[in-house]
Amino acid sequence: MWSAKIIVEYKEGILDPEAKAIKSAFNTMGHHEIRDITTGRFFHLEFKQEISREEAEIKLKEVCEKLLSNPVIEKYKFELEEVA
Amino acid sequence: MWSAKIIVEYKEGILDPEAKAIKSAFNTMGHHEIRDITTGRFFHLEFKQEISREEAEIKLKEVCEKLLSNPVIEKYKFELEEVA
Repeated sequence: MWSAKIIVEYKEGILDPEAKAIKSAFNTMGHHEIRDITTGRFFHLEFKQEISREEAEIKLKEVCEKLLSNPVIEKYKFELEEVA
Repeated sequence: MWSAKIIVEYKEGILDPEAKAIKSAFNTMGHHEIRDITTGRFFHLEFKQEISREEAEIKLKEVCEKLLSNPVIEKYKFELEEVA
């Protein structure tokens, strides 16, 4: 059985509005020792059927591109792990 | 200098509305081989001043509890790493 860890982040050069808001809050709160922050999302996904690594990768690619990320502004990566 | 990786997830037993929506979309899209998905957020944070590990941990705890997570429904963990 396969389990996957997926990470979705903004592409380089894309404005990260949440990070911008957080940085502005750091200043308001007096955390001037913080230089930078970036944000992202992650997902843990579990397959229930016995499928091959190739099939799992094809499924994951489709799910990442159509559902979990916006390929125009975001990049994703995933790691597949075999679980008992 | 310190760099931190922060992970924020829902606590056990808290309904994850994004995961629920994604699971329902999996069904609509015909991905019946997916058993479960959980979601979370992550942050990479960089300090700009030379501070001690203890000071960095206190700052991080404050930032996580007041700004990056909702401690009522979410849990967080962070890893501090020394960078050049």
